Amino acid sequence: MAAEGAGPTTRRVLVLNGPNLNLLGRRDPATYGAKTLADVESELIALGRELEVEVECRQSNHEGVLVDWVQHAQDTFDGIVINPGALAHYSIALRDAVEAIVVPCVEVHISNVHARERFRHVSVTAPVMQGYICGCGTAGYGLALRAVLARLDG
Amino acid sequence: MAAEGAGPTTRRVLVLNGPNLNLLGRRDPATYGAKTLADVESELIALGRELEVEVECRQSNHEGVLVDWVQHAQDTFDGIVINPGALAHYSIALRDAVEAIVVPCVEVHISNVHARERFRHVSVTAPVMQGYICGCGTAGYGLALRAVLARLDG
Amino acid sequence: MAAEGAGPTTRRVLVLNGPNLNLLGRRDPATYGAKTLADVESELIALGRELEVEVECRQSNHEGVLVDWVQHAQDTFDGIVINPGALAHYSIALRDAVEAIVVPCVEVHISNVHARERFRHVSVTAPVMQGYICGCGTAGYGLALRAVLARLDG
Amino acid sequence: MAAEGAGPTTRRVLVLNGPNLNLLGRRDPATYGAKTLADVESELIALGRELEVEVECRQSNHEGVLVDWVQHAQDTFDGIVINPGALAHYSIALRDAVEAIVVPCVEVHISNVHARERFRHVSVTAPVMQGYICGCGTAGYGLALRAVLARLDG
Amino acid sequence: MAAEGAGPTTRRVLVLNGPNLNLLGRRDPATYGAKTLADVESELIALGRELEVEVECRQSNHEGVLVDWVQHAQDTFDGIVINPGALAHYSIALRDAVEAIVVPCVEVHISNVHARERFRHVSVTAPVMQGYICGCGTAGYGLALRAVLARLDG
Amino acid sequence: MAAEGAGPTTRRVLVLNGPNLNLLGRRDPATYGAKTLADVESELIALGRELEVEVECRQSNHEGVLVDWVQHAQDTFDGIVINPGALAHYSIALRDAVEAIVVPCVEVHISNVHARERFRHVSVTAPVMQGYICGCGTAGYGLALRAVLARLDG
Amino acid sequence: MAAEGAGPTTRRVLVLNGPNLNLLGRRDPATYGAKTLADVESELIALGRELEVEVECRQSNHEGVLVDWVQHAQDTFDGIVINPGALAHYSIALRDAVEAIVVPCVEVHISNVHARERFRHVSVTAPVMQGYICGCGTAGYGLALRAVLARLDG
Amino acid sequence: MAAEGAGPTTRRVLVLNGPNLNLLGRRDPATYGAKTLADVESELIALGRELEVEVECRQSNHEGVLVDWVQHAQDTFDGIVINPGALAHYSIALRDAVEAIVVPCVEVHISNVHARERFRHVSVTAPVMQGYICGCGTAGYGLALRAVLARLDG
Amino acid sequence: MAAEGAGPTTRRVLVLNGPNLNLLGRRDPATYGAKTLADVESELIALGRELEVEVECRQSNHEGVLVDWVQHAQDTFDGIVINPGALAHYSIALRDAVEAIVVPCVEVHISNVHARERFRHVSVTAPVMQGYICGCGTAGYGLALRAVLARLDG
Amino acid sequence: MAAEGAGPTTRRVLVLNGPNLNLLGRRDPATYGAKTLADVESELIALGRELEVEVECRQSNHEGVLVDWVQHAQDTFDGIVINPGALAHYSIALRDAVEAIVVPCVEVHISNVHARERFRHVSVTAPVMQGYICGCGTAGYGLALRAVLARLDG
Amino acid sequence: MAAEGAGPTTRRVLVLNGPNLNLLGRRDPATYGAKTLADVESELIALGRELEVEVECRQSNHEGVLVDWVQHAQDTFDGIVINPGALAHYSIALRDAVEAIVVPCVEVHISNVHARERFRHVSVTAPVMQGYICGCGTAGYGLALRAVLARLDG
Amino acid sequence: MAAEGAGPTTRRVLVLNGPNLNLLGRRDPATYGAKTLADVESELIALGRELEVEVECRQSNHEGVLVDWVQHAQDTFDGIVINPGALAHYSIALRDAVEAIVVPCVEVHISNVHARERFRHVSVTAPVMQGYICGCGTAGYGLALRAVLARLDG
Repeated sequence: MAAEGAGPTTRRVLVLNGPNLNLLGRRDPATYGAKTLADVESELIALGRELEVEVECRQSNHEGVLVDWVQHAQDTFDGIVINPGALAHYSIALRDAVEAIVVPCVEVHISNVHARERFRHVSVTAPVMQGYICGCGTAGYGLALRAVLARLDG
Repeated sequence: MAAEGAGPTTRRVLVLNGPNLNLLGRRDPATYGAKTLADVESELIALGRELEVEVECRQSNHEGVLVDWVQHAQDTFDGIVINPGALAHYSIALRDAVEAIVVPCVEVHISNVHARERFRHVSVTAPVMQGYICGCGTAGYGLALRAVLARLDG
Repeated sequence: MAAEGAGPTTRRVLVLNGPNLNLLGRRDPATYGAKTLADVESELIALGRELEVEVECRQSNHEGVLVDWVQHAQDTFDGIVINPGALAHYSIALRDAVEAIVVPCVEVHISNVHARERFRHVSVTAPVMQGYICGCGTAGYGLALRAVLARLDG
Repeated sequence: MAAEGAGPTTRRVLVLNGPNLNLLGRRDPATYGAKTLADVESELIALGRELEVEVECRQSNHEGVLVDWVQHAQDTFDGIVINPGALAHYSIALRDAVEAIVVPCVEVHISNVHARERFRHVSVTAPVMQGYICGCGTAGYGLALRAVLARLDG
Repeated sequence: MAAEGAGPTTRRVLVLNGPNLNLLGRRDPATYGAKTLADVESELIALGRELEVEVECRQSNHEGVLVDWVQHAQDTFDGIVINPGALAHYSIALRDAVEAIVVPCVEVHISNVHARERFRHVSVTAPVMQGYICGCGTAGYGLALRAVLARLDG
Repeated sequence: MAAEGAGPTTRRVLVLNGPNLNLLGRRDPATYGAKTLADVESELIALGRELEVEVECRQSNHEGVLVDWVQHAQDTFDGIVINPGALAHYSIALRDAVEAIVVPCVEVHISNVHARERFRHVSVTAPVMQGYICGCGTAGYGLALRAVLARLDG
Repeated sequence: MAAEGAGPTTRRVLVLNGPNLNLLGRRDPATYGAKTLADVESELIALGRELEVEVECRQSNHEGVLVDWVQHAQDTFDGIVINPGALAHYSIALRDAVEAIVVPCVEVHISNVHARERFRHVSVTAPVMQGYICGCGTAGYGLALRAVLARLDG
Repeated sequence: MAAEGAGPTTRRVLVLNGPNLNLLGRRDPATYGAKTLADVESELIALGRELEVEVECRQSNHEGVLVDWVQHAQDTFDGIVINPGALAHYSIALRDAVEAIVVPCVEVHISNVHARERFRHVSVTAPVMQGYICGCGTAGYGLALRAVLARLDG
Repeated sequence: MAAEGAGPTTRRVLVLNGPNLNLLGRRDPATYGAKTLADVESELIALGRELEVEVECRQSNHEGVLVDWVQHAQDTFDGIVINPGALAHYSIALRDAVEAIVVPCVEVHISNVHARERFRHVSVTAPVMQGYICGCGTAGYGLALRAVLARLDG
Repeated sequence: MAAEGAGPTTRRVLVLNGPNLNLLGRRDPATYGAKTLADVESELIALGRELEVEVECRQSNHEGVLVDWVQHAQDTFDGIVINPGALAHYSIALRDAVEAIVVPCVEVHISNVHARERFRHVSVTAPVMQGYICGCGTAGYGLALRAVLARLDG
Repeated sequence: MAAEGAGPTTRRVLVLNGPNLNLLGRRDPATYGAKTLADVESELIALGRELEVEVECRQSNHEGVLVDWVQHAQDTFDGIVINPGALAHYSIALRDAVEAIVVPCVEVHISNVHARERFRHVSVTAPVMQGYICGCGTAGYGLALRAVLARLDG
Repeated sequence: MAAEGAGPTTRRVLVLNGPNLNLLGRRDPATYGAKTLADVESELIALGRELEVEVECRQSNHEGVLVDWVQHAQDTFDGIVINPGALAHYSIALRDAVEAIVVPCVEVHISNVHARERFRHVSVTAPVMQGYICGCGTAGYGLALRAVLARLDG
C-alpha cells in the first residue's frame, strides 16, 4: 500500500536494479545498450509522470540490501519493477522476499537471457513474479512499469 | 517491410496466436483470464490505432500454418507479436522460421509459464526473439506491440 | 454435451487416431496386430451399438487437425477415445486441447509403449487424461470406450 | 494353466493388490474413490461370473508375498490382474517374477499415476506386462479382467 | 486416536525402527554410537513417563511388517516416531502408508544422512512426515517424541 | 515399388524437404549456401537423369503433409531422400512413418548439425534411416541420392 | 568456548535466523505459523533459562553478516542454532563458515522443505551440521536448542 | 565366526539366493541356464566338501528374511556367498546388513547384468562386498565360494 | 596442400581407418557387410582414378598413430576421409588434430551408429568435420570421397 | 582356436594387463596388494599347469597394443583373461575388439571398482565379456582363468 | 588503469580474498596450510616489491563488497588477483563484475578444488578470468601475481 | 628422486606435452599464441637454469607413451610439469599413472579451458595433481615449474 503522504491519487512504484547494473552504458554496450543507469532512471521517472505514478529508483550490488528493500516496499509502494541481474539465477532469498509480499512485482532483463549462457536460462525468481519481460533492451523497464499498473488496474 | 499499399507512414504488425488460444475465455479462466481472443484482438487493433500502427491478427492450431505466416510476414509486415502457445516448448521449426526472417519478433505468453509445469519452463523459440514477455495476462499483448515498436524505433 | 439431434438417450463418443495409425495392419504386425484401422473401427461401432453409444471414428496425420477435432468435440460429443500415436510423446498442443475441454478423454496405445524405446516411455498427454490404457492390443480401444462410459456413469 | 479341479470350461484369474490397497475407501477418497477393497473384489467376482471366469482376490503389504503368489499363479491360474501399488515404482523383484511366468498379466492403477508425483511416472513392472491400465478409477479392475481374457482369446 | 483402554489422560506413541537398527551398538559405533537399541528404547520409555505419554517400541527388518504397523497405529496410537533406516531411501510403500493415516508421524535418523553416500541424501518418506530429524545421534529419538507431542498440542 | 507408368527400367526417387528449406538461399547463407531450393532441385533432377533415375521434389512446412507423403511413397517410389529440417529433432510421427515403410530412406542435412546448438545434435529420425549425411552443404542431396541407389543395388 | 564473563556454569548458545525470517507471522502463515520472530525468540530465551543456558538471538538478510556471526561465535558461544532460510540451498560460503568452526551447530527449518519445491530438497549446509531438524514448525527451534545441548553433553 | 559345534577345522559358508532364483531352470534358460537351484546347490555342497568347507544354502523371495539371515550369519558362518537377484539394484537395507557384519561376503550374478537393461547396471550392494562376480553362468557360485576362501586365507 | 611431386593436376586424398576396421568382413557381417578392408580400399582407389584423384589408404588401432597421420596430412594431402571407428566417441585428441588442420576432412561410419548403443550416438569428432556420413554401408566411403572433392571444388 | 603347435590336448589362455598394472606391488598396496605383476603371473602359470592349460601373460600401457593383441588372440588362443585397468572405463575400441572375436573373454579387476570413484563404476568393456570379476584381490585372476575354462567346457 | 598518484613506473595489483579466507591458518590446516592470511599478504607485498608492483590486499565475507571492489578496481588498479572462496561456485554476480571490467583478473584457490566435493568442481567465475590457478597451496597467490604481470606484459 | 648422476644440488623436472601440442604456433594462434613448442621449451630450460633446476622436455601424441614417461619419471626426476592436452578430459590411464607416483606433478593448460566447449570443463587428471594452472597462456609453463619447486620446498 502506498504511504499516506503520497496523496490519494498517486500510486508509487519502486524500481530496483541488482548487481552490476550500475555499470550500464559501460559494460558490454552491444548487449546492454549505450544508456547509463541514470539515463534509464530519468526516462522511467518521466514515463511515471506521464502515467501519473511516482517512480523511485535504487540500485545495489548486495543481495541482502535488495531483500531488505523488497520487504519494506510492502508498506510504502504499490508495486515493484525489479531487474535482479545475476541474482535472478541463484538468489532464492530474493525469491522468497518477493513471494512473501503482496504488492505486484514484475521482473525485467535488458538482454535476452535465453540467448546467452545456459545458466542464464534458469530464473529462480521468475516463478513468483506477476510478470516477466526480457530481451526488449532498456525499453523493457517502461514495459514493466506498464505491466505493474495493468496488474494494479486488473 | 510493410506492403506498399499501407501508405508511407503506417507501420504494420502481425499478431499471431498458436494452438488453443482460440479457446481464450473458455479455457481455465483462472490462468488465462475471462477475455475472449476476439476481445484481445479488438483491444490490440485499438491500441495499434492509438500508436499509429496497423495491426492484423490471425490464429491457428497448425504449426505448419504458423511457419508459413511467419515466413510471409517478412515481406508484408514490419514486425510480429507471437504467442506460440504450447509450440514454444518444442517447435524448432517455428524457431527456425523466426530466426530466418529479419523483422523484429516478440514472444508473449499470457500466464507465467515459469510458475507452471516443468516442461513449460523451456522455450525453444525464445532465444531467437527480439523480446519475450510472460505472466502479464492479456495485457502482455499490448506490451509486446510496444516492444516491437521500440525495436523498430531503436 | 451430445448434440441435440442425437436423441435423449444416445450418448456419443468420438474415437480419434493420430499419425501412422492409418497404416494399421500394414505396419509391423508383430507389434500392432493384423487388423486394419477399418476393422478396428467397425468393431468399435458394433461394440458401441451393444453399449448403446454412438461411435464416430476419425484419423489424421496432422497435429493441428487433431487439436481442432478435440476442441470441437466439447460441444458435440460426450467423451473421447484417443490414440495420439507418436504425438503422445511431444505434442503439448494436443495435451493443452484435451486439458481445455471438460468431456472425459481416455488415451489408448495398442502396443506396450513402456517396453519399447525410451522416448516412448514419456507421455505428455497422459497426465490430463481421465484414463490411460496400453499394451492390450487393438482390444484396448474397446476397453477405452468402456472406460469413457464408466467415467460418464461414475 | 488352470488347476484341474476347476472344470474343463472355467478359466481362473488371480487378482492381486499390493501395499496399502487394503486401505481403499479410507485413504484419500478424492484420489482413490469411496469403495472399499471388499466392494471392489465383490464386483470383480460378479463380473467374473458374468464373463464365465473364476476370480480369486488377495492383498498383501509384503513384496515377498506378492512375488510368491505370482510365481505360484503360473500353475493354478490362467491370468493375473495386479495392482502393485507403490511397488510398481521400485520392485524389480516383482517385475522379474512377472517376467518369469507365461500366463498373461495386466497391471492396473486406480489413479492416473502420470498426473501425480514424478516418481510415480516410472513403472518398473509395466514393461513386462501384457497390458497396463491406469486412471480409470476402480472400474480399471474390470477393464483389466477383460484385457486378460482378450489376451487369452487373442 | 488412542485406544480407549489407555485412560482419558494418557497419550500413546508408537516408536518404530526399520532394517538393521536392531544392530545398534554393534554396527559402526563411530556413526551410530555405542548404545544398543534396548538402551535407546528404555530411555525413550523413561522420557515418555516424564512427559506423561505411553511409549511402545518395535523393530523389524521387513518393509511389509512396518507398513502393517503404521496402518494399524491409526486406531491405537496418537502419534508415531519412525526411523525407517534404509527404507527411507526407496520404500514408497512405507511412504504411502504414512501418508494414508492421520496421526502425526516424525522421521528420525541417528546419523547425518546428508553427510554420507549420495543415495542417502534422498528420502522418499520425508515429504509426508510432520517432522524430520537427523544427525542428532540417538538423542534424536527423544527430540522426535517431543516433536510428536508438539504437533498434538499445536 | 515404382509406379507402373514409369517404365520397366526407370527407378523413381522422392526428394522431400521439410520446414523452412523453401527459404534456401535467403536464410543465413553462411550456414546454408547461396543456392535456392529451386537450384538444388534442378541439379538433383539433372543428376538423376545422369544416373537414370526419375527424381521428384516436394517441400512443405507441415509435419502432417510430410508424413502423408512418406506413407504414399511406399507404393509409387523406389526410395526417398529427405531433409526433415527442424523436424528431425522432435517429430517422432515422421520417424514412425519412415519406419513403417520399406523403401530405403536417406536423411540429409545441409549444415553440420553436430557443430550447432545442442538440441540439433539429437535426431529422432536418424535411427530408422538407411543412411544419414550432414555437413556436406547442398552437395549432400546428390550424395544422398547416390546412397539410395547404392541401397537399392546392394 | 563461552566468554569468560558468562560465569563458570552458564553455557551460551547463539540462535541465528537468515533471510526473510524477520517476516515470520506475516509470510504465508499456513506454512510458517502465526508466531512472529520476536515470539519465537522469547520462547527460546525462556526455554534456555529452564535448561540453564544463555540464549542470544540475531537475524539478518545478508549472507555476509551471517558468515561473520558464525565465525565469531567460535570464541564467544558454546553452540549455534541456525535457520539459514533460503541460504541453506545455495550458500556454500555459509557452509564453509560452519565447517571451519568447532562448536556444534544445528540447522532448523520451520516447514518441511522436503515437501516443497524441488530446489528446497537440497541443502548445501546440512552436511556440515551436528544436527538437522525440519518440518516441526516453530517448535523446531526448541528441539534444536536441546540437540545442541545433547551434543555438548554427549 | 563359525559355530563351535562345527569342529576346529571346518569352515562354514552360507550361500544365499534372493527373489526368483528358486525358478532357476524354469526362468529364461537362454539367460540363466538349464540347471535348477537344487542342482546348483548340490554342486556347491560337493565343491565345499572338496575344499573342506561346510556349505549351507537358503533361498527367499523376501528382502526382510535375507536381511535377517545376513545379520545372523555373523555369529555362525565364516563367509557368505550371495546372489541378491533383483534386490541388488535397490535394496539398501540388504546393503546395510552386509556392511554391518564383518565376515567376508561375495556377490554373484548368473547373467552378465551389464549386458542387460540399464537399471541392472547399478548395484547398490556391490560397493560393500569383498568380491563381485557376474556373467559366468552358474559356475559363478563356485568361483564365489573360492573367492570367500581366498579372503579368509588372504 | 598436395605435395609438389604429385603433378599439377592430381589431387591427393588420404583415407584413414581407425581401430578394428582391419577386421572388416570378419566382424559382425550383418552390421558391417561382407567386404574386407582390402576390398573397400581397392574400390576407393578405383573410384579415385575415375574422379582423377590419388587415394592413399591406411589403418591403425592406435589413436596416437592416427593423430600423427592427420597432422602430417596437412602438408601432403588435399583432403581426408576418416572412419575413426570407436575413437569417434571419445578421442578428443583426434578431434583436436582434425580441427588444427585446414584441409577438408569428412567422417564416415559404415553402420548407422544412431541405431545402435546409446554411447555411439555421441561423436566428439563430428563437430569439426566438413562432412559426416553414416549408415550407408561401405558405399559411404565413396560418398565421403565425393564429399571431400565437393568441398575442394565448392 | 589354439595354435596347432600346442598339441591336441593343451588349451591356451592369454592373460592381458592394461595401463599401470606393471606397477603392481608399488602402487597403493592398500588397494592393490603387495604382490608384483611378476608374482601374479607366476602364480597364474602355475595354476594353469595344475588345470592343464597353457598361460601366456602380457602387459601394455598402450590401448592400441591391447587392441592388436585381442584381435590376434582369436587365432592362437582359446580364451582371454583381461584386466583392462583404466581403459575399462572409456576404451570403446577395446570393447569393439573383444566383441569382434569369438573366443571367451573374462574381465578382472583387482579392487572393488564399485566402491571407488564414481567414474570407475561404469565399464564400457564389461557388456561384451563372458564373465566379470572384481574386488577379489589378485586372487581374481585365478578365478577368471577358471571362468574361461568353465565357458570352454560349458 | 593505475591511479595517477602511483607514479609513472609502478603498476598496482589488487589482491582480493572472499568468504572465510580470513580464517586461514585456523581452518583445516591439512587443506589450507598453517600460514595466516596476514602472513600470505605480507609475502605477496614483499614479492610485489621484488617485481616492482604495488600490491594492496583486502578480504570480505560479503559478496556485494567484493563486487563493489572489483568494479572500482577498473580505475585504480592494473590487475586483480582474486580468491573468491566459496563464491567461485555460485556467485554469478561476481562473475559479471569481473567480465565487465577490462583489467586482467586471475583466480586462485589454495586447495585442489577438483579433488574435493563435487560442487567445488564447478567454477562460475573461472570462464571470465585471464588465468586460473589451484592446488598450489598459498604459493598460488604469488604465481597468480606473476600471471597478472605476464598478461600485462603479453 | 633425481638420478644420482645429476649431482647433489641439481633438481630435475620433466616437462611433458600431450597430443597436438607439437602444433603450437600453427594451431589456432588466437587461442594458443604464436610461440612454437620449441620456443616454449627453450624458455623453460632458460628459466630452469635461473632457478637452478634441470629441465627436460618431451612431447607425444600417444597416450601410452605419456603413461610410460610418467611411470619412469618416478626414479629419475624430482617433479613433473604436464600439459596433457585433450587427454586431460578422458585419459583415466594417465590419471592413474600420475596418482601412482609420488613426485609432485602440476598440470598446465595454455588456454582457459573453462571458457571453451563444455567437455573441456571436466578434467579427469586434475584431481590427482599437486597443482593446476590454466588460461595463463604459454607463461603457464613457467608458473607450473615454479609450483613444482614450491611443492618440493614446501
